[in-house]
Amino acid sequence: MSLLESLGTTEPLAAAFSDAALLAAMLRFEVALARAESALGLIPADAARAIATAADVDGFDPETIARDARGSGTLSIPFVEQLIARVRAIDPASERFVHRGATSQDVADTALVLCLSRARAILAADHARLSSALRRLSDAHAETVMLGRTLLQPAPPVTFGLKAAGWFAASARGWSRLAAAFDEACVLQFGGASGTLAALGDDGLRVSAALARELGVPEPDAPWHAHRDRLAGLITACGVYTGTLGKIARDVSLLMQFEIGEAAEPGGGSSTMPHKRNPAGCAIALAAATRVPGLVAAFLSGMPQEHDRGAGGWHAEAPTISAAVQATGAALAAMAGVMEQLHVDPDRMRANMTATRGAIFAERAMMLLSPALGREAAGRAISAALDALAASDEVKRVLTADTIAGLDTPEMYLGSAENLRMRLLGES
Amino acid sequence: MSLLESLGTTEPLAAAFSDAALLAAMLRFEVALARAESALGLIPADAARAIATAADVDGFDPETIARDARGSGTLSIPFVEQLIARVRAIDPASERFVHRGATSQDVADTALVLCLSRARAILAADHARLSSALRRLSDAHAETVMLGRTLLQPAPPVTFGLKAAGWFAASARGWSRLAAAFDEACVLQFGGASGTLAALGDDGLRVSAALARELGVPEPDAPWHAHRDRLAGLITACGVYTGTLGKIARDVSLLMQFEIGEAAEPGGGSSTMPHKRNPAGCAIALAAATRVPGLVAAFLSGMPQEHDRGAGGWHAEAPTISAAVQATGAALAAMAGVMEQLHVDPDRMRANMTATRGAIFAERAMMLLSPALGREAAGRAISAALDALAASDEVKRVLTADTIAGLDTPEMYLGSAENLRMRLLGES
Amino acid sequence: MSLLESLGTTEPLAAAFSDAALLAAMLRFEVALARAESALGLIPADAARAIATAADVDGFDPETIARDARGSGTLSIPFVEQLIARVRAIDPASERFVHRGATSQDVADTALVLCLSRARAILAADHARLSSALRRLSDAHAETVMLGRTLLQPAPPVTFGLKAAGWFAASARGWSRLAAAFDEACVLQFGGASGTLAALGDDGLRVSAALARELGVPEPDAPWHAHRDRLAGLITACGVYTGTLGKIARDVSLLMQFEIGEAAEPGGGSSTMPHKRNPAGCAIALAAATRVPGLVAAFLSGMPQEHDRGAGGWHAEAPTISAAVQATGAALAAMAGVMEQLHVDPDRMRANMTATRGAIFAERAMMLLSPALGREAAGRAISAALDALAASDEVKRVLTADTIAGLDTPEMYLGSAENLRMRLLGES
Amino acid sequence: MSLLESLGTTEPLAAAFSDAALLAAMLRFEVALARAESALGLIPADAARAIATAADVDGFDPETIARDARGSGTLSIPFVEQLIARVRAIDPASERFVHRGATSQDVADTALVLCLSRARAILAADHARLSSALRRLSDAHAETVMLGRTLLQPAPPVTFGLKAAGWFAASARGWSRLAAAFDEACVLQFGGASGTLAALGDDGLRVSAALARELGVPEPDAPWHAHRDRLAGLITACGVYTGTLGKIARDVSLLMQFEIGEAAEPGGGSSTMPHKRNPAGCAIALAAATRVPGLVAAFLSGMPQEHDRGAGGWHAEAPTISAAVQATGAALAAMAGVMEQLHVDPDRMRANMTATRGAIFAERAMMLLSPALGREAAGRAISAALDALAASDEVKRVLTADTIAGLDTPEMYLGSAENLRMRLLGES
Repeated sequence: MSLLESLGTTEPLAAAFSDAALLAAMLRFEVALARAESALGLIPADAARAIATAADVDGFDPETIARDARGSGTLSIPFVEQLIARVRAIDPASERFVHRGATSQDVADTALVLCLSRARAILAADHARLSSALRRLSDAHAETVMLGRTLLQPAPPVTFGLKAAGWFAASARGWSRLAAAFDEACVLQFGGASGTLAALGDDGLRVSAALARELGVPEPDAPWHAHRDRLAGLITACGVYTGTLGKIARDVSLLMQFEIGEAAEPGGGSSTMPHKRNPAGCAIALAAATRVPGLVAAFLSGMPQEHDRGAGGWHAEAPTISAAVQATGAALAAMAGVMEQLHVDPDRMRANMTATRGAIFAERAMMLLSPALGREAAGRAISAALDALAASDEVKRVLTADTIAGLDTPEMYLGSAENLRMRLLGES
Repeated sequence: MSLLESLGTTEPLAAAFSDAALLAAMLRFEVALARAESALGLIPADAARAIATAADVDGFDPETIARDARGSGTLSIPFVEQLIARVRAIDPASERFVHRGATSQDVADTALVLCLSRARAILAADHARLSSALRRLSDAHAETVMLGRTLLQPAPPVTFGLKAAGWFAASARGWSRLAAAFDEACVLQFGGASGTLAALGDDGLRVSAALARELGVPEPDAPWHAHRDRLAGLITACGVYTGTLGKIARDVSLLMQFEIGEAAEPGGGSSTMPHKRNPAGCAIALAAATRVPGLVAAFLSGMPQEHDRGAGGWHAEAPTISAAVQATGAALAAMAGVMEQLHVDPDRMRANMTATRGAIFAERAMMLLSPALGREAAGRAISAALDALAASDEVKRVLTADTIAGLDTPEMYLGSAENLRMRLLGES
Repeated sequence: MSLLESLGTTEPLAAAFSDAALLAAMLRFEVALARAESALGLIPADAARAIATAADVDGFDPETIARDARGSGTLSIPFVEQLIARVRAIDPASERFVHRGATSQDVADTALVLCLSRARAILAADHARLSSALRRLSDAHAETVMLGRTLLQPAPPVTFGLKAAGWFAASARGWSRLAAAFDEACVLQFGGASGTLAALGDDGLRVSAALARELGVPEPDAPWHAHRDRLAGLITACGVYTGTLGKIARDVSLLMQFEIGEAAEPGGGSSTMPHKRNPAGCAIALAAATRVPGLVAAFLSGMPQEHDRGAGGWHAEAPTISAAVQATGAALAAMAGVMEQLHVDPDRMRANMTATRGAIFAERAMMLLSPALGREAAGRAISAALDALAASDEVKRVLTADTIAGLDTPEMYLGSAENLRMRLLGES
Repeated sequence: MSLLESLGTTEPLAAAFSDAALLAAMLRFEVALARAESALGLIPADAARAIATAADVDGFDPETIARDARGSGTLSIPFVEQLIARVRAIDPASERFVHRGATSQDVADTALVLCLSRARAILAADHARLSSALRRLSDAHAETVMLGRTLLQPAPPVTFGLKAAGWFAASARGWSRLAAAFDEACVLQFGGASGTLAALGDDGLRVSAALARELGVPEPDAPWHAHRDRLAGLITACGVYTGTLGKIARDVSLLMQFEIGEAAEPGGGSSTMPHKRNPAGCAIALAAATRVPGLVAAFLSGMPQEHDRGAGGWHAEAPTISAAVQATGAALAAMAGVMEQLHVDPDRMRANMTATRGAIFAERAMMLLSPALGREAAGRAISAALDALAASDEVKRVLTADTIAGLDTPEMYLGSAENLRMRLLGES
């Protein structure tokens, strides 16, 4: 986890995309390929064993691989060279069976897919935490009344339970899309130089199937060297879910303002103000929601890749998608933490509502008055009423004393809030 | 269809998002709302009739609405004002029942959804055309051998049928995601001021259900004023599919180069060069693939919307998503046209392959030689062979005369191309 | 001004990029070209006159041009065809001198440049309004003390004059970059088919110079058909300035929250809540700050254009840059309006500061105490003090009674605020 | 340099943004601050010495800092804690003078600025290499005639010298904007908690000036905690320049196609095809031109930062801008390498032109014929001529035999190519 990236990832996610993890994934591909080919009798069993023995991450030099990648345009070439050298040292006769039938992009893409699969499990766990916490908050605050706020101005009341249910349902949708996109994207890449597996003659598809089984990743209909839509679906699902996480974080950061004070995350401190609590978790989620859309655009704009392997579009993908997945996971972990420890202040919620002195009930008064007075007179009456802080005679004539008395009881103006909350939680 | 936007839409799509179409959709919402409320006995039947009578697009002044929208931050307010004035002129007693229980965003979002539904049908038809044409091309050219090309350099052969099948399968996936995203996004928006339907008391959900039925759009679990992930899912699916269309267009524009000449779209002319054919259809698709990713980023970055209705994020959405859907449709229509009339030149394909004088068979030779000679010697041999344009003695020793003779017969080096083609077409 | 775009432009800007304006600009190019060539004796004076006569916007049919543009990949071809037809009707002998030596992109790019120049003047006027208003606000509130706020939490005090000066200086920098970018970008495009002016033989550069003079736009070093960096500089300057306008709008929308109430724009109303004021101007600016970054990305990603004229990248530019300039102008006009009528409430500013009950002076107390007590003890003391709402004994020992008394006088803790304000206004 | 990022940076640039470099820059800030305050008599000289002694990068634990940064929302807090601990171990009395008057963002932003300044020098050197190489190529090939190509189709001839001059001038403009943006952005950040330097009482501006001198970075008019336009100007200039580098790379990669073969970079090899040369340098530049626009959008969309320090927008900046600068530098280094070793093949250029059999001279024929025959007859004649591969009688009547003979001599149809080339090189 580099310092500059520290707010854009988590420790387990940084590990999932580290040099060691990527090298391990590339080695898993080469070992599985050798085993698959050996099982099919295409290469000697000794070669598969020698390759497996050579496939020790610690024996590789990531700095040299990274530097040489610039010359060849891909990590795979210097990586395969180092692997060949190691196999040669173990068993010179096996050297020629390394990477057999595969192309650079096969190992690079499949290794990325293996790293993404690992990341998926990390995100799933944090999503589950967030989801439980939101569910709990929604149930606990089903009757906690608070101001609705539209364009940052007071509006008729809602419940905090409804708000949390809205967050819950949106994050459930976000994860559902993202999980499906991981499933679609995390498939084997194996096509050889032009994507026809020509180097394996008639054995191509059997090797492909055996390789997929060895690796435990599904085999797609065909290689996808220049068709990147499945990965695009994954990064866009990251974009949509971080957007939702950013929305939740924005709400919390606004509720946490000193002047509002209706909810607070535990937050982080300040280097100069000992008492201060900052919405550090929300800031991480909002940062992700700021970064990921641009990463999505970068990925999408690289999709028109030339013929059977692109020049440039493909080369832009790996840093882009790994950053997007990590930022999404950073936002998820941050918001899970925020929601598990969220402090909610129902008293401030009620006090802030009371402080609007009825202004937010204008809509309700409008609905009650306009059938009798007409729209214009009702609007005049309400404006006057709110200005004067007193009910006008005109109002008194058409509404009963009870209705007027209840006019600013927020519980009487929640409409379908509880039914909607239950629907959002999937309970009705 | 404005001049500056002319390459970014089609006539039917421009019509689907025109002022007239948007106004008609807003009026459909208000009429359906009045009918639903009248059917439930909440407003008089006369009012519903008066509102339906007033709802004539020609009676509205889009210029005034557009200008006044800047003052209120939404089209809905001046639109509702004009509708009220028209109802008042028809039946003053009905004026107060216009827009009852709804908020500005309800009519704006639902009208957008209605326009999007109309666009969906247009895109579906063009996708079907593209899909048929690609299927036909793939079958017709199952045995048309051509150069593979990776990083724009020659690679082992493929068939044009396989290439077209790759386009077919990617566009099928693209449409499948996009159609699902349209389904998810095109749902009713109806929540009232704070999303609780409070103005309708206990009748909110019944009105909502009746309104959805009247409009023929599904009712979601709850209003989604500040949760925009469903629309985000739609625009990102546009992004992924235009990426694929851009990839197909890039391939065609490259094949159409004078020096390659393997395929050509009918194309467009030049203002100064009478004989010239430009890849005008491909340019439209590539332009869409250039524009849409940025529109996707804009939409996603606006998702963190404040509380129960956002200030700014929401206001950026309508022009962004309508431009993205239109550009996607423009690309689809253009590529459907390109593929329906694509001229394919199998002779040039073969000639270009022959011109590489065997260079592309290096991989095959490598596969054949390296088990016998080892990797290094094989590489040396092939380089020498290719440089010398003649088989070396070393080669002759390990390969039979037949194998050498067949070395540059591309049909003998297609690997699993035909099997993969069938899998991409869903035939195996 | 279309309904869907109404919040993303203003009436004068919509006019500057309208079909009529674009056609007029294309005609200006063709007329100026004919005049320049006639003046140099390359075409008959009669032809130049006939072309000028034919160049009447009303005689052109934008719908046909827009539709046919899709077939040829550019507006210029059907436009020139209509112009030729009109010239032929006036003087058949002159028809052949229309568009002489120019290529489609020459007229399209130069017309866009002419529209951009017109937009520049509109933006300049709104920037001047905004700038004056900010200057006035800063001076009027040089001594109006308010809470600083970091990460949306209370921080040591600032003055509203300093905040307004920060807005002023950032918008001055934004305009300065944008004006320079307009100057760099708004140059003649004239190169003929391949950018060599070959069709004009040895006269190319003389025609180019004369054409630039006729049009009143500078002549660049060379045609720039596939080098789009000058326009890229313009759209990125739009992006930076809208980012600043969005920052200002975010601040105002936050200050305008009911619970804070320190400043308010006149704002827009609600369709259901008569009393409500929405930050409609801020929403327009925030919407622009949401949209424009994506438009910038779209433009930049289209820059790698092929050889002497691109296929796709160029075709994506015109709608992208015209939308970006209009959105920037919409934000500028909105924020000029906001600032000219901004209501500032110094009493609420002071009340909100007082309500923090000294929390914001933690930093100051820390600075005063830590030299005497050390960092840890000082932190402990301040936390205790703030919790207890009373000064601890430890504090009393090291600070004089006067210092303690002044501890929560914000005016005594403004540091260099006024000096910095003057520097931001360029006054020191 | 991590493996996943290896194509998006260079070794010196990865070093400039490494953990060690960032820590060193943060320490430079703290040491310079202590020296400045000590020189002004605000803290003891012993404290400045103790802080300088403690400021040894090797004594810091980047992993802990990165992990704790997530809790506090910034690297600065755990960094300052580690520094304090180290100072305390050296001289407990000096601990309280660490970071005096500064806020977290002061050290974080200034450290980023110091890293950016270091990167600037690296980019400048590679730009100089690229610029010289392009200049040399343009001069060497002033008379090397080649096909113009528009929309990837043949067009009238240009010279390779003109093409290289176009690349030269665009990259000169790109660097000029980028260098100016570095100058504007690389300024001191120093404002204390709210940007007023309040903790330093009346000494704030003197400390600020002294600190800037110590660090050798300019002091801006005021702190810029929430005004990020200068950095935005820098990242957008990266975007524009990578766009140009991508354009150059696209041209080279297209010229390098086997079927065109007019120019080639040394390129990289293939893991399976020993003879193959890939445009690896161009792929790196095209990858940068794909990635950076999205990074630009991410930065711009984060600009609307709240009040005196943002929550989220700021937190997204550092990884975004450091990735953009590194990708720009990777593209620059790659294209400098490409151009220093570019192989140009004038024979293929001429052969490809000849192969068009005159089609590209249609424009020229049109210019010569249309004054005599009129536009329509000329078009007919040319189409017929090109189809028949023979001059029609109609043509013979209006053009002399000499003109016809010279019709397909490209040197006679270069128009102002050489003059334009000289202008692009700044030589006329």
